[in-house]
Amino acid sequence: MPHLRQYLPILDWGRSYNRHSLSNDLIAAVIVTIMLIPQSLAYAMLAGLPPEAGIYASIVPIMLYAVFGTSRSLAVGPVAVVSLLTASAIGQVAEQGTAGYAVAALTLAGLSGAMLLAMGLLRLGFLANFLSHPVISGFITASGILIAASQLKHILGIEAHGHTLPEILGALVSHLPDVHLPTVLIGVSAIAFLFWVRKHLKSTLKRIGMPGLLADILTKAGPVGAVVATTCAVWGFGLSDQGVRIVGAVPQSLPPLTLPSFAPDLVGALIMPAILISVIGFVESVSVAQTLAAKKRQRIDPDQELIGLGAANIGAAFTGGYPVTGGFARSVVNFDAGAETPAAGAFTAIGLTIAAVALTPLVYFLPNATLAATIIVAVLGLVDLSILKKTWGYSSADFTAVASTILLTLGLGVEIGVAAGVIISALLHIYQTSRPHVAEVGLVPGTQHFRNIHRHSVITDPSLVTLRVDESLYFVNARFLEDLIQKRVTEAPSIKNVVLMCSAVNDVDFSALESLEEINQRLADMGVGLHLSEVKGPVMDRLKRSHLLGALNGQVFLAQYDAWQALTDPHRPLSRVAE
Amino acid sequence: MPHLRQYLPILDWGRSYNRHSLSNDLIAAVIVTIMLIPQSLAYAMLAGLPPEAGIYASIVPIMLYAVFGTSRSLAVGPVAVVSLLTASAIGQVAEQGTAGYAVAALTLAGLSGAMLLAMGLLRLGFLANFLSHPVISGFITASGILIAASQLKHILGIEAHGHTLPEILGALVSHLPDVHLPTVLIGVSAIAFLFWVRKHLKSTLKRIGMPGLLADILTKAGPVGAVVATTCAVWGFGLSDQGVRIVGAVPQSLPPLTLPSFAPDLVGALIMPAILISVIGFVESVSVAQTLAAKKRQRIDPDQELIGLGAANIGAAFTGGYPVTGGFARSVVNFDAGAETPAAGAFTAIGLTIAAVALTPLVYFLPNATLAATIIVAVLGLVDLSILKKTWGYSSADFTAVASTILLTLGLGVEIGVAAGVIISALLHIYQTSRPHVAEVGLVPGTQHFRNIHRHSVITDPSLVTLRVDESLYFVNARFLEDLIQKRVTEAPSIKNVVLMCSAVNDVDFSALESLEEINQRLADMGVGLHLSEVKGPVMDRLKRSHLLGALNGQVFLAQYDAWQALTDPHRPLSRVAE
Repeated sequence: MPHLRQYLPILDWGRSYNRHSLSNDLIAAVIVTIMLIPQSLAYAMLAGLPPEAGIYASIVPIMLYAVFGTSRSLAVGPVAVVSLLTASAIGQVAEQGTAGYAVAALTLAGLSGAMLLAMGLLRLGFLANFLSHPVISGFITASGILIAASQLKHILGIEAHGHTLPEILGALVSHLPDVHLPTVLIGVSAIAFLFWVRKHLKSTLKRIGMPGLLADILTKAGPVGAVVATTCAVWGFGLSDQGVRIVGAVPQSLPPLTLPSFAPDLVGALIMPAILISVIGFVESVSVAQTLAAKKRQRIDPDQELIGLGAANIGAAFTGGYPVTGGFARSVVNFDAGAETPAAGAFTAIGLTIAAVALTPLVYFLPNATLAATIIVAVLGLVDLSILKKTWGYSSADFTAVASTILLTLGLGVEIGVAAGVIISALLHIYQTSRPHVAEVGLVPGTQHFRNIHRHSVITDPSLVTLRVDESLYFVNARFLEDLIQKRVTEAPSIKNVVLMCSAVNDVDFSALESLEEINQRLADMGVGLHLSEVKGPVMDRLKRSHLLGALNGQVFLAQYDAWQALTDPHRPLSRVAE
Repeated sequence: MPHLRQYLPILDWGRSYNRHSLSNDLIAAVIVTIMLIPQSLAYAMLAGLPPEAGIYASIVPIMLYAVFGTSRSLAVGPVAVVSLLTASAIGQVAEQGTAGYAVAALTLAGLSGAMLLAMGLLRLGFLANFLSHPVISGFITASGILIAASQLKHILGIEAHGHTLPEILGALVSHLPDVHLPTVLIGVSAIAFLFWVRKHLKSTLKRIGMPGLLADILTKAGPVGAVVATTCAVWGFGLSDQGVRIVGAVPQSLPPLTLPSFAPDLVGALIMPAILISVIGFVESVSVAQTLAAKKRQRIDPDQELIGLGAANIGAAFTGGYPVTGGFARSVVNFDAGAETPAAGAFTAIGLTIAAVALTPLVYFLPNATLAATIIVAVLGLVDLSILKKTWGYSSADFTAVASTILLTLGLGVEIGVAAGVIISALLHIYQTSRPHVAEVGLVPGTQHFRNIHRHSVITDPSLVTLRVDESLYFVNARFLEDLIQKRVTEAPSIKNVVLMCSAVNDVDFSALESLEEINQRLADMGVGLHLSEVKGPVMDRLKRSHLLGALNGQVFLAQYDAWQALTDPHRPLSRVAE
């Protein structure tokens, strides 16, 4: 059943599953579970949801992805950027902490899941390509900054809401007099500890003789250390009575069965954010999955990934979660820890279920400041302003796309930022092709090659102009070509023939075809011939279906040298251009 | 003063003006004036404005264009499509027949003029290129149908308003019982007469021995004949007392000095329509001007044209007019009648001024049905559904763009129609380049040429894959390339080297650069080399500013044959592919 297997990759890897894979997957699952417990709580807080939503969002979704996903290493669950997008989207329709807020999160996950599933079944995975790398990088960087800024309130123990950087900073500054010192002490210590763990723990442990893998695992478990230490401190010193905000009671329960609301108003308000979350989550997930798959010479199928992520999000919608996707950090840990198949994800889900049922009382005294510290340290790793420098040196269009995405995301919020980035990069691309590089070429003496007359010493003929257009001809540059030829020909009355050398023309759309017909007509009115040379096969196939070739006031030459021989007078002295 | 002359083309042609040009321009002006009197009244009616607005819009604007415009033959004034756009835009902010309606028309002309002027000074003429030929053709065709439908109410003598085809037809059907027979008689006779004039008058006149030019002029004056005949009929038989709607009293006056309103609400409501009118008017005008200029081996400057049209519209705003542009019919008549310079336009303006002051009482009994008939006959010439057939055969993307522009313009109105057309054609273009043609190539035996292995009998090497990508590499197809290479290499473990042949790659943007780095890294992880061949100069210049070449797990070859020689083992038997 090849068809069924395409949609159920589990049938593929499941058949060859053995004891060796099982033990590797189990070890990876234990490591990932330990890492995910504090992370799930923290991202739920970032999304404005109760802590258990983060854990629930890591259980059923990961199991569904194991059945439908194609990556062997991807770990699906709450991630920082999607949590921020969730907070931003739901904040517009419901008040944080209300029942409506949690229901809206379920609806968002349900819509996002349905869209991903539909895109997968319709094989629309290519839609993610409309997000250029600069837009994604700029967006992730700006999101990291926004997320870090939004968590500062937990570190300072104050209230400060906002969806843009000016809003958040303004709120922080205005509430600065309310700073709660014990909370600051916990938060700043946790941040310092986590940065130290990230930078120095591994090398320190290795120096004292610990094996690399174990040192690695302990480093990854750093947040757990911070959680344990600060929870004990709050409990031991009774700091929660002094106003340190804590996680408090988390229900001890299996993921509940929940029903998202599909009220038309709510769906209408969440449809655009759901599209955004789907596309961004998909792009992030696929990038991670492809990178990891390549390391083992495996492949992932982007369209099937859409189905896997869609199933995961629908699962989240019905089990008390919120939108999820494949996370970078957790997937890399899973991969490094030796996970061989998606079964590792299923085992992680079992580990988190045990945590949800048995361990939640242990986080009662966990301070919010610690969770904020883990978020801040994690997301600052996403901030990469070097993309500005890299694109600046490489291309002004790409730089403009990055810079405007970052500025608009910080200044106007995540949704406008990424939408503007997509539109700007599409417009810049079209604009760039609207004035393509066009070289006037001449014959390199003693050869059959033609080169730019401004760059090389070549032979030209005053009665012949040969233009090489280095771009596909389509509506945006069709008129440019008309103007260019009109200008060149009206300037020099000696011109009797114009040759368009089409070696770099990958397409001629209908607008360009009409422009060529117009150019042909105008040149004919002036008594000038229009010729084509080196037209590519697919382009020629298409031109043959039009009237251009029949009406052409000139010829089509296979090679540019043929055009040269046919159109120049061998007896007239030719001019030689050098520069 | 070359700089001043650039902005004032009149300084150019004015210096060489002589008696010969004068007499030619005068003759042309007389012919165009006769043609413009009924046309101006008719288009004003189409725009929902009093008849004199059409005449005023033909006087000052044409004089200002003569000073600032670069075309020697363009005749500026009210045109059908812009009149429809005006009616559609103003109909949303004011009731037809009110003072607010006329003021809104002035504001629209003022805004449109200011935009055109600003675009010209900023040299943004290329923005018009975002309108593809299929979108323009589809839009003009749909507009012609909408205009003809909207005029049927005048032919039938009933009330029927609407901005979309279903609205207009629905209103016509529901008012059908009110049909006014004398009006129908006039309207249908006028339409029949005008069609006969257009089809047969010229050949008939020539057959009876009339010189070609005179026959031509009489044919062009056809509408004047219909105007005179029906006006006399209405006056002689007292038909206006029987309910035939007539033009009525038109003030005998020079164009008045008027002030457009720039109230923020009105400007806000008209800004988008003004952009649309500016761009569409500019595209129509430039196409006509370029076509006529080419016939005399002259050039027009699109950016200066923006300034000329901007000045004309600002003139319309302050002299009781409404948005204008260079019209096709009037410009061709002007050109055919022998106009040599823009002075012909100025003389036409004088002719129309005389008409406005002295002749308006003569059109008192002119029936609206006759004006509607001239409009219907004129715009049905714009309707060209053959564009559907032409694009169908040529390219499915272009067909989709035409068909959706026509359907959306007819179904949802002119503004949504053209905006959707622009967005659809941009998305289709980007979509098409998202899955570029990629050929796997092999060596043609006995040559140094490489061709598609599926089309030609070529030599390949199982350890080497050479892919020729026939498209610029940029964000939309960057991931496609990643997937393609990943798929090809994971399929065949024998592959040791991948060569990307870049002869048709005109650009590599930052997204594609990062994809190439990613591909390079992934191939390196698999122990496969990545090489580039035949990279173009400008692309190579850019790549040299990146880290790709330094990190490349392979080489850059000038020619594909160099890559072949370096990467294949001369001692291993090579496989030969034929199909």
